[in-house]
Order: sequence, then structure tokens, then C-alpha cells
Amino acid sequence: MIVNDTLYGVIDLRESLVLELLEHPYFQRLRRVSQLGLVQLVYPTATHSRFSHTVGALYLMQEALKVLLDKGIAISPAEQEAVCIAILLHDVGHSPFSHSLEFKLLDIHHEEISIALMEQLNEQFGGRLSLAIQIFKNQYPKKFLYQLVSGQLDMDRLDYLNRDSYFTGVREGKVGYERILKMLYVVDDSLVVEFKGIYSVENFLIARRLMYWQVYLHKAGICAGEMLTKVLERARYLATQKGEKWEHLPVSLQYFLFNQFNAQDLTDKTKSANILLHFTNLDDTDIWYALKIFAQNSDICLAYLAKGILERKLLKTEQQNHSFSRDHIENLRLINRQKFNISEQAAKNLVFTVKHANRAYNLNQQAILIYLGKDKAVRPITDWKEHNIQPKEVVKYYLCYPKTAQDLAENDPNFL
Amino acid sequence: MIVNDTLYGVIDLRESLVLELLEHPYFQRLRRVSQLGLVQLVYPTATHSRFSHTVGALYLMQEALKVLLDKGIAISPAEQEAVCIAILLHDVGHSPFSHSLEFKLLDIHHEEISIALMEQLNEQFGGRLSLAIQIFKNQYPKKFLYQLVSGQLDMDRLDYLNRDSYFTGVREGKVGYERILKMLYVVDDSLVVEFKGIYSVENFLIARRLMYWQVYLHKAGICAGEMLTKVLERARYLATQKGEKWEHLPVSLQYFLFNQFNAQDLTDKTKSANILLHFTNLDDTDIWYALKIFAQNSDICLAYLAKGILERKLLKTEQQNHSFSRDHIENLRLINRQKFNISEQAAKNLVFTVKHANRAYNLNQQAILIYLGKDKAVRPITDWKEHNIQPKEVVKYYLCYPKTAQDLAENDPNFL
Amino acid sequence: MIVNDTLYGVIDLRESLVLELLEHPYFQRLRRVSQLGLVQLVYPTATHSRFSHTVGALYLMQEALKVLLDKGIAISPAEQEAVCIAILLHDVGHSPFSHSLEFKLLDIHHEEISIALMEQLNEQFGGRLSLAIQIFKNQYPKKFLYQLVSGQLDMDRLDYLNRDSYFTGVREGKVGYERILKMLYVVDDSLVVEFKGIYSVENFLIARRLMYWQVYLHKAGICAGEMLTKVLERARYLATQKGEKWEHLPVSLQYFLFNQFNAQDLTDKTKSANILLHFTNLDDTDIWYALKIFAQNSDICLAYLAKGILERKLLKTEQQNHSFSRDHIENLRLINRQKFNISEQAAKNLVFTVKHANRAYNLNQQAILIYLGKDKAVRPITDWKEHNIQPKEVVKYYLCYPKTAQDLAENDPNFL
Amino acid sequence: MIVNDTLYGVIDLRESLVLELLEHPYFQRLRRVSQLGLVQLVYPTATHSRFSHTVGALYLMQEALKVLLDKGIAISPAEQEAVCIAILLHDVGHSPFSHSLEFKLLDIHHEEISIALMEQLNEQFGGRLSLAIQIFKNQYPKKFLYQLVSGQLDMDRLDYLNRDSYFTGVREGKVGYERILKMLYVVDDSLVVEFKGIYSVENFLIARRLMYWQVYLHKAGICAGEMLTKVLERARYLATQKGEKWEHLPVSLQYFLFNQFNAQDLTDKTKSANILLHFTNLDDTDIWYALKIFAQNSDICLAYLAKGILERKLLKTEQQNHSFSRDHIENLRLINRQKFNISEQAAKNLVFTVKHANRAYNLNQQAILIYLGKDKAVRPITDWKEHNIQPKEVVKYYLCYPKTAQDLAENDPNFL
Repeated sequence: MIVNDTLYGVIDLRESLVLELLEHPYFQRLRRVSQLGLVQLVYPTATHSRFSHTVGALYLMQEALKVLLDKGIAISPAEQEAVCIAILLHDVGHSPFSHSLEFKLLDIHHEEISIALMEQLNEQFGGRLSLAIQIFKNQYPKKFLYQLVSGQLDMDRLDYLNRDSYFTGVREGKVGYERILKMLYVVDDSLVVEFKGIYSVENFLIARRLMYWQVYLHKAGICAGEMLTKVLERARYLATQKGEKWEHLPVSLQYFLFNQFNAQDLTDKTKSANILLHFTNLDDTDIWYALKIFAQNSDICLAYLAKGILERKLLKTEQQNHSFSRDHIENLRLINRQKFNISEQAAKNLVFTVKHANRAYNLNQQAILIYLGKDKAVRPITDWKEHNIQPKEVVKYYLCYPKTAQDLAENDPNFL
Repeated sequence: MIVNDTLYGVIDLRESLVLELLEHPYFQRLRRVSQLGLVQLVYPTATHSRFSHTVGALYLMQEALKVLLDKGIAISPAEQEAVCIAILLHDVGHSPFSHSLEFKLLDIHHEEISIALMEQLNEQFGGRLSLAIQIFKNQYPKKFLYQLVSGQLDMDRLDYLNRDSYFTGVREGKVGYERILKMLYVVDDSLVVEFKGIYSVENFLIARRLMYWQVYLHKAGICAGEMLTKVLERARYLATQKGEKWEHLPVSLQYFLFNQFNAQDLTDKTKSANILLHFTNLDDTDIWYALKIFAQNSDICLAYLAKGILERKLLKTEQQNHSFSRDHIENLRLINRQKFNISEQAAKNLVFTVKHANRAYNLNQQAILIYLGKDKAVRPITDWKEHNIQPKEVVKYYLCYPKTAQDLAENDPNFL
Repeated sequence: MIVNDTLYGVIDLRESLVLELLEHPYFQRLRRVSQLGLVQLVYPTATHSRFSHTVGALYLMQEALKVLLDKGIAISPAEQEAVCIAILLHDVGHSPFSHSLEFKLLDIHHEEISIALMEQLNEQFGGRLSLAIQIFKNQYPKKFLYQLVSGQLDMDRLDYLNRDSYFTGVREGKVGYERILKMLYVVDDSLVVEFKGIYSVENFLIARRLMYWQVYLHKAGICAGEMLTKVLERARYLATQKGEKWEHLPVSLQYFLFNQFNAQDLTDKTKSANILLHFTNLDDTDIWYALKIFAQNSDICLAYLAKGILERKLLKTEQQNHSFSRDHIENLRLINRQKFNISEQAAKNLVFTVKHANRAYNLNQQAILIYLGKDKAVRPITDWKEHNIQPKEVVKYYLCYPKTAQDLAENDPNFL
Repeated sequence: MIVNDTLYGVIDLRESLVLELLEHPYFQRLRRVSQLGLVQLVYPTATHSRFSHTVGALYLMQEALKVLLDKGIAISPAEQEAVCIAILLHDVGHSPFSHSLEFKLLDIHHEEISIALMEQLNEQFGGRLSLAIQIFKNQYPKKFLYQLVSGQLDMDRLDYLNRDSYFTGVREGKVGYERILKMLYVVDDSLVVEFKGIYSVENFLIARRLMYWQVYLHKAGICAGEMLTKVLERARYLATQKGEKWEHLPVSLQYFLFNQFNAQDLTDKTKSANILLHFTNLDDTDIWYALKIFAQNSDICLAYLAKGILERKLLKTEQQNHSFSRDHIENLRLINRQKFNISEQAAKNLVFTVKHANRAYNLNQQAILIYLGKDKAVRPITDWKEHNIQPKEVVKYYLCYPKTAQDLAENDPNFL
């Protein structure tokens, strides 16, 4: 069984359980969840799906396993299958538009939903996913298997950097993944990288940082994502406070607008089943459809934002390294209240700030370890001062508000 | 004003009218129309939009104009703008899923809808599109401008081959477009190619042919497209014959299910306005949303097909060079009538044949002309017998019918 | 042990004998033999060596073996090593400038020299190359091993097409080698390709044909190669007829100028040892050095040609599909005899014709076989008429003669 | 007039003087000067020439000029031609093997030789290069023209990073040059980069740093280059101290072995003419030829080193961040004196240390300036603390000495 991927070419798929899971509707749904959400309003070619990302991460996992097995690391066939399943399903709990709507439809981290779905699948598949779940939860002794799935240098990151770089055309994010894979090794059940690969790891960390600021936290993309958030908040407000019925919205979207769930609710068996049922019914296409309905609504604020996303008429966005003054924000809200003749509450949905932080390398997480050779100590990459391992957090503040047509040209580096 | 494109890098956009049209909702809609429709069920990375294709074709047009101007061909600024607008809007009349649904929602060629939309835009923009429309309709004396937009070697084809090859990962479709562009020239108002570029043109024609059989007419993609067609036919049948109301479908989709239009209707001003209004409301996301509703319907045939597309459980598809025997088809229909307990009419939607033809080069269209140098005759490329210019039409027949799970693995070269 | 290759990334080398052979001076010499000879005068980036080509072909062999082993084909470790050695050494008998000087220094096909060198190495390595030699000579029962080394779809061709396309920048020659490799299989000890790969094979054959006419038989490259041939003929003539001593030339080059050898001479043990000693002393750098000496010589014809290569002042070259008229040639010789005041003999070295033929696919060689599935017959690719398998030989005639400065610009498509 | 380049595709060449210079033997010689010298012993595909690098840099210059002209910067046709000539000839004074032999054949920086050759060409071309020379010497008022040729972000660096990355296969060195070019601008006659390009510039600086440590200062490449240096030193020593005649060496190489020149000598007209005559006679092929002669010499040390380069049997090389102890070095020399039975002087040629420093960004040179928009101040890139602009010099020490066969495998990351 093979699949064509434009990054890696022909990918072989063998393990039958992996194939069965690929064909499952839960996984096929990821075809309709875009990997980068509304970033495609900034980078028009970035329309790739979470489906292709996950298959790509699976490919990298297969390659990593080959390298480790070749170097004599013991990984049983069952463990190989399990770690492949773990990477395949790691994102199955992603909301529509991926991160844009995470915590917005329901207040639960996508990994927790992934776990809930994996456990449901485990029941369907007669317990055959147990080992995969154990690895995914980092409860398995060979912790390098977990690290391959989730860590500061895992197959997920390797694929998404490469893939997002490829589809956005931001060349700076390209990572020499082949070389990194070749340099992987295991010492004391921990994933390590051979010293010869240190420049490739450094380049990976830098690429990740550049992708954050040029893509993931690009001001126009952040603005679009926040507009979407405000749309849902406003729609929920109209539903719960103003008696709006939203009868023409997709049923499962209604479910999340009229109810608010958090991680606690997943522990209740019945509630959980309902939540997962409606959750897996939703993908990007429901949200796009909802936006069209919202764009026709009589609520000026809701219609303005929904139409703005559909027609790519984004709010003007300023970005700076320190927070915006309260006065400046209040002033903008006042202006817009008058301009649109709307309530204070509504104005907050049109004029708002948001803050995002990123660090290239996190000292509080499991370090990336460098292997210096047999009988030599394994050391964290930060021991090499000459390398650009930047653990400092960088914070940026964004301020968004309605703009006039003239503003458009001046402000967006990537206009379309 | 620049835009990042993963194929061409940074694209400059200057002409203000081009920019205004780009920002128009009619054009922004193309972001939600996939370039290859359901081919993404075969090639999972082929999620690119008609929006990015059109911007790419615009880029190639800009480059072609530079080459021709450098070679001393007279093209006025107004003509340059017009031909850019013509290429920008050439696909604005595409249905959701591009070719998959062409002639299915309404019985009109996408170019005719493009023209109708261009004329409507021309009114909005005070006649500033008149020259572009003249070129697009091939009514302008300098016919090479039309040939750049639409011909056997136009900017549209150059971009879509490259782009579809890039996003599917089918390397065979890649075209050396830079070299072809450099070789363009104009003789007697006709577009010609310098002799030095003859191998590049040959390669372009071969690449196109390979893309047809490996991508555009790939049996799994054809099957998925036909399933979608049958879904709409069935939904329309249920609406018009069985009193199904389809109240939860998008309003504009209802409009096309309950009414059937053809090109003639575009000549009636009021009708045309309504058609275009509803048409421009629709994109892929409405169809995906409709599929979810259809998948819940009590009509077995409709639900089966809709679910099949959503979960990528495609019909089994056979492909051969001659037509399938009537007996074979009837037999399969009988089996499925019994298996699903459905009517003969419904069985036709589950078991069906379709035929597709392709020719690499069409002798009935304007020839690709080769330029041998000053004072030498311009000759059609087919004069060079050693080149693989293949004007013969190749026809393939497809037969689709419900399959069992086991069939799946055996038959699809590109499974996912 | 790994090596970086710009086409394939990181290549692993494991078998110790393969590594030992890589380090042998006979093999290291290939670093100084350019893959495409004087084609670099046409395509300035095509400076890659036969060394990197051979390592690349070795990589493809390793990948092909993995595919076949995965599909259950029995290939013992000894056979794997042997076929890797066979591909590694298949070009070890190449002359300086590869094909440009084949048969010119000595009248022996490069494969025969390769065999002689392999046999010499076999003695040095205590018989450990015997199996490799058996495979290389097609004397081993599992003939697919030979076919992987030498056939119409072997690892040699796959690498050189890709590599030459990559380094020349002639995109049309790029081949989707990954897909072809994945489709390899073995039936009755013959190498076959699964049906799903038929378009990739067709594309490979077309790419090869385009590379022939755009690169290998490009008129400026052919001209430069012929000029080099004429230089050596003239130098040999001066040595044997005019008493020129050539004392400053590299000793091993003198050896081949003053003696003429053919394949028969390799059967004489002493002669063979001497021939191989001098042969392995020579590489491109000796010829370049010799050209500098020739360029200073008092023989006008020799100096003209040598200087022409060094300074890229090539003869004017005409190319056509039929032979040039005797009158035209004689006339040009007469003109140049007068212009340069040289003998008739010398004029033949300045005005000459050459003919080259190419066929994309050779019906007289072992066919490329297509595998239709278990229990189905294996059929030659030419059975599919719709594919562009072009077995017809195409012949081109070249006429070269001294040109004036003005001619330069008009005639060379790729000037530099 | 066009040329194919595998990086940039088809390059147009128009200005007639640029073409004439391209055809000049001084420039054609660069075809036989490898861009990376003996780095090809580490990265076998890095066989590209300084010729192709220079043509590439010329291409980037043409593109940069287009961008600046489009933005309204005044650059006259004469200035355009001059800056193109300046970049074309900036490396014309490179020694064989580029940097490996710089200061070794003669003690003069390659730029000074470039200037001397440009001045000689200026005489031949009747003063038509005067403006180019003025720019090259930074004596022209519009200093951005100089900065395009030589600066911390010039066309030379942009091309060599891209090109060296491409040919070595070290992906980390790839630079998004298109985006950088688009962001160039001029303020107060200084070259600046628009703020939107700041990440691309950062990436460029990081890529450069990674290329230094992975390619230019790779320990095996440094070792090979130093071995070559020691070969020449030893040959010169044998010539001047031991009466070795070196009659079979290329005459122009003899000239530099028996005489030592420095920059001062270029000011003497006759001396200069002789130096330039012999200098332009030499290229890589002379050195390779000389190595073959040296490898046969009776001086053990010379033969050992020359053979080591020819057969890629490099010295063992250690690399560290601090200097090697005198004792360690002396001990190794003693061991090798005994092993080879050679003099102390010779032992120094077999056991030696070398030190290399690199800084990604040099605070002492003209800063890279960032442009924040009209009426806003231009600021140096180092003002942005969050970016990885690393001005600290990193120093590495290398120790090379004869190794045994076993050492080989263990030590070289990139073996071949």
C-alpha cells in the first residue's frame, strides 16, 4: 500500500492496524481540517491538511525506526507498530482550523481529545491500541518512543516545519530532516543526537523560530484567527444572551455554541460520548458554512467579522514588543462604537489585543541531548555556547481594529 | 504589493485594477474552490486552490509580457493590464470542485460563466474591463494576447501543469516553464516559439499527457468525481420527483437543485443576475456541508455515495481501453439492487460507466508555431516528425460499482 | 560511513569490501574524470565527476535491493555485495573526459577496460570480486542482477539521467526514480516493472531521449568533443610522422600517442599490465595540461584547436537531419587551407563532419518488461501502443568549421 | 545570449561589454578553477567552478538592479553596466583551488590581483572598464553600487552561499535570495533592507555561519587544503635549498616556486606584466598535474602529501576550541620523524596545526542597515536584540598528522 506525498515521494504503508486506522472516519476527517487554519489568507498556497501532515509524520517515524534498528537499538515489532499508531493519531483531536479554534469550541487541549478518541478507538479495536496509548501518555519505560512522538525534536515537529515551509514557500523553515534522522540514537532509553548532527539540530531550532514569527505568529494570520474566535464568541453570546436560535447552523456546531465543555466533562462516560460524537462531526467546512450564515446576520459586529474572513478584509493589525496602552485601545473602541453604532460589548469584538510568546528552545522541557561517542557522557545541546540555542522567550503584542481601505496596502507584508 | 507563492516565490502585483479585482469577493471565493476537486482523495497533498492557480497564471503572464517587451513586441500598458485581467479572471466562473461539478449544478461551461461575471464586474468598474473581455473573447486584433490566455501553450496550462505536478508530487508533470517563456515571440500577431525551445515544448506536451492519465483521469479520482455527480443527480431527483425539501441545505445549492439552467438563461438579464448571485455564493465548503446532510438521509443510495466520499470509501473502479459490455453492467446493477434493496433508478447511481478521452495535441485547434528565425517561415510543431507530438485521441472507459472492503487494497495504486 | 550527495542526501556505505574499493586509487581517480567531458563548455554547471555518478548509482542499487528484498526476492548477502561492487566499478575503465575520448587514446570500449581493471583488483583482493565480475559479464544465473547493472532500465542510467539533468539544469531530464525503484520486481530471474509504474518508465525513456538531443548530442558539446579528438589525432600524427617528441607531455599520455592499442592487447599479460598502469595514470587534468602545451605549438592547426577548447572559441557547427554535401565540405576545406595556409591533411582537422544516432528504446536489446500481477504474463512495454516508446533511430549530422567572431552569437543556443 | 545555470535556470546576457569580457581568456580560465578547492574531497558533488559562481553573481546583480530601478532608484545605463562588470571580474584574480592556495603561490590577496587584471583589461578595452574599477575600489560616490559587489550582504555572498549549499548538499546553507533581493532599497546612497526582510537577512547570516563550520572550515577540507600548502612549501624548499630543478612542472608554476612575490611587485610595470602572464596561465589542472609529479618524487614527505591528496588519504585531523599543547605536537613530530626517517623540517610538514576564526557578522565593517519606512531612521540590524546576529568570533584549532588505516573510518563525518 503506497501513498504519494509531494514532500517525501512514495510512502509505504504496511502494518495492517495502521492502515485500518487510516481508513477510519475519525482519521479521514483530518482531510478537511487545514493544517494552518487561516494562515492561508496570508500564504495562499498553504492549504495543506492535517491529514497529510500526519501521514508525513508517520513516514518520518518509519524512517527513524529504520535508523535506530540499524544501529542495533532493540524495538520489537509491537513497539514499532505502537509508536507508528501513536504518531498517526497524535493530532486526531484537532478542532477545525487546527490551532485557530483550539480551546474555542470546547475548552480542552487537542491532545486530551486525541487521547479520548484513541481510547474510544481502542475499544472498537479490541484493545490493540493499548501500547500506543501507553507510549503517547509517556507511561512506557522506553521513553525514547514517547520522545519520537512528542519532544523538542520529534517527528511531529520535523514534519510540520518542513511541510509548512514547503506549502507557505517560506524557505527559511526548511529543515534537513534526512541528516537529523540519520544522527538519531538511543542512550539509556533516551533519544539522543550524534555530535556530527549538532549543526543540523541548531538549524532545526532556528528554522522553527523563524517559522513562528514569519508564519505561525504572522500578524495577519493571528488577526484572522482572532476574528474567527470573536465570531464564535459573538455567536455564542447571541445564542445564550439574545435568544438567537441558529437553526441553520450545522447541528454539531450548535451543540458547542449552546454548551460549554472542559476537560472534566470527558471523564463522564455519557457526556464524553456525546462530545466526541459532535466533535468528530465538525471540520473546517462546517465553520466556513457557518461564516456564510453569520455574514448574513443582522448583528453588525458578527456580520462584519464573518464577512471580513470570507472576503479577506482583515482588521488592521499592529504588532509590537510591549503591550498597547489602555487609552489607545479605549479610544479605538469609542471611535468604532460610534462608527458602527454598536454596544461596548460588541466593540470589544472589533477592537482587541492579543499577546503571543515563543521560545526556540525550552529549558523546562526534556533537553535535546548530544551523544559524543561510546563511553562518553551525553550532554544537553545548551552546553555548546557557540550555537544559537535561544531559550529566551520572545513576546509580541498585537492590536487589531477596523481599518479603511487605504490602510490595507501599507500594512500587510504578504497582502493576499 | 507582494504575495508569496511556493512555486514562484515572491510575486509582485502592481496594476491597481488587478489588485482591486483580486480583492473582490468573486475572486476571493476561489480560495474555497479546490483546483483539482476530489483528486485530493487520491493525492492527499493536492489541496491547492483555484485562487493560487490563478495568481500563478498571472505571474507567468507578467513574465511572458516582460520577455515579449524585451524582444521589441509592441504591447501598450493598457493591453498589458487587460491581458493580466483576462488571465486573472479566466477561471472566476468555476463551480465548486472545479471540473468535477462543471455542467452539473448548471449546464453551462465555466468560461461562459466567467464571461458573464466579467461583464458584471465591468459594469461595477465603469467599463474598465472592456479590453480584457475583448481579448478573452478573442475579438481583439492582436490575437497573441488571446493565445497567451487560451491556447495550446498558454499561461493557464503552464501554471496548472506545474502546480498540479508540484502539489500531487507527480514529478513527471513538471514543466521547464522558464525556458518556454524565454522562447516566446510574436510573428504576424501570432504567438510563436523559437526553434531552440522545441524540446521544451515537446516536454510540455508529454508532461500534459502524463498528468492526464496519472492525475486528471486517474481512476480513483474519476470515480470520486462521478460519485459526487451521482449524489447531486440523486438529490435533485429526490427533490423534483419525491418531494424532498432539502431545507437544511445551503440556500444557493437548493436553488440549483430545484432549477436547471443552461447558457441560454444567461442572456436574460434578471435570470442571469439571480443565477450569478447564487453561483457566487457557492464553493467547495457548501458541497462538503451538503454531503454531510446527504450522508444522514434515509435514501440508501444517496447516503451510501455521500458517506463514501466523506470517508473515502470509493466504489471499485475498473479502467480499460474499450467499452464495458452491457451484460456485465446490467449484472452488476442487478446484484446491487438486491444487495441494497433499491430501485433500478437508484442502482444506476451505484453502478455506472464513464468514458474519458484525451489528446496531447489537438490538430483542430490553433497549432503551436515554431519560429526558425528572421525571414524564415513559421511552421507548426507537427512538421518535426521526430518529436513526440501525439495528436491521436486516447479513450479510456471506467466502470464503477460498490466493492467490499477486501477489494480496496488490491486496486488503487495510490491508496489514500 | 556516510557520504553527502547533493541529489540523494546522506548515503550510507556499509559493506567493507565496497569501502575498500572506494578508497582504491583506481576509484579515487574518477574524481578527476568529468562525467560529461566538454559538455561543461555548453552547460557551465555540469562539472560533476564520474566518481559522484558511480556513488549515486551505488545508492540506487542499495535502494533497489531493499525494494526487492522487501518483496521477498531471494538475494543472498554475497550477491548483494557483488552487485554493489559491479555497479561501483562499472565505469572504472572510463577515459579522461568520459565518452569524449573513448576509443581515442586507445581503441577499446570502456567496459572492456573496466573488466580488465576489475580482474586486476580481483587478484589484489584475493578473489573477492569474482562474483561481481561474473554478474558484470552476465555470466551469473540470476540475470536480474546483471540487468540492475546494465540494461535499458538500470541503476547506471537512472543515476546519470537524474544527475546530468540536475547539474546541467535541463529540467526535462529529471526522472522520478523513487517511483520506478518502488515498482521493480523479479519474475523468472528477470527484472520487471509493475504495471502501475508504466508512466514512470515512459517518462524515463522520454527524458533519456530529450537529454540526448539537449545535452549529450548538443551541437556545441559534440563540436568541442570532436575538436579534442582532432587535437589528439594531430598530436599523434606530428609524433609519428613529423618527429615531434612531446617530451613535456605527461609520460602516460606520450605512451598512448606513440602507441596504438586495441582490445586484443589486453589479452597479453605484460602488455595489459603496462596499458592499465598508464591508463590509470591519466585523467582530465593531464589532458587539460596537454592542451596548454599544444596551444603553444608551432603547428597552426593543433594550436588553433587546443586554444579553441581552452578559451571556448569553438568551431561553428551546423546540425541537420541528412548528410552534408561533399562539395560544401570540400569548399570549406579549401577556404580554410588558404586562410590558414595549411596542408590538406590539416584542413581535415579543422573542417569535418560527424554523425550521431540515438534511439530512445532499442528493440534489439532485452526489453523492459511489465508485470501485470500474479499468474499473468509478463509483457514488453512496447505492447502498449499508446505510450511513446520510440524505437526508431534518429540520426543527426554535424558539420564543424572555423568561424568568425560574428557567427558566434547567432548559432549557439547556450552560449557560454 | 543566454546561459543555462542549474540554480537560476536561464540567464540572459545583454550588455555587449559584459559578453566580450566573458569570452576573454582571463575569464574563461575560471572554468578550470574550482570554487571550493579541495572541499570536493569531503563533498564529492562540490565540483562547481568559480566561473559558474561568477556568472551566478552577475545574474543576482541583474535582478537586484531591476528591483532598485523599479523602486525608482536612479542608476544610469553606464552605472548598470559598470556594476555588472565589477561583479563579473571580482574573482578573476583567484588562484588555482580558490582560497586553498591564496597567498601561497604569491603573497597577494586575490582582490588585488583582480584589480591588476581589471586594469590590464581596461587598457585592452580602451578605458571602458574605468567606471567598473572605480566602483570596485569603492571610489565612486554612489556607494551602494560598491556594496552590491562587496559588503556583508552582497551579490557575491548571496550566490556563493546558495551555490555552495546546492553543490555540497548541505541544505542548511540555502538562502531565500529572491526575498532578500525584493527587499533591497537605497537610502542616502547606502544599500538598505526593508524591515519586512529582516528574518530573511537573519537567516542569511545564520546560513553563512553554518556553511563556515560545515563546509568552508570542515576539518577534512581544511586538512586537505593545508596538505596542498605544505606540498608547495616543500617543493619550493627543495627548489631553493636542495637544487631541485622541477623541469617537468608547468613553466608558470616553476616561476612561482622559484620566485616569491608580494603586492608591492604589482606596482612595477614589467614585473607585474610577468606575474600576471604566469598567473593567468595557471589553474587547478596545473596543480593536479604537479601533484602527480610530486607523488613520484624521492622526497618522502613531498610524495606522501601529494599522494595523500591524489588518493584521498588525508592526515588524521583533530579539531577543538582551544590550541593544542606544544608537547602533544612535538611528540607527534618525533614519532613521525622516526617512522618516516625524515628531518625535523620535513616532520613539520607532516604534523602541523592551523587555526581558523569566523564571525557571522562583523561589527567593524559597514553594518547591514534596516529600512523602517519613509521618514523613519535607518538602523543597523544589531539593534534588534531578538535576532541571532552573532558578532562574536569563534575560533577553532586543527591538528593534522599521519594516521593509520584504522583511524580513517572513525574520524571523518563525511568519509568520501
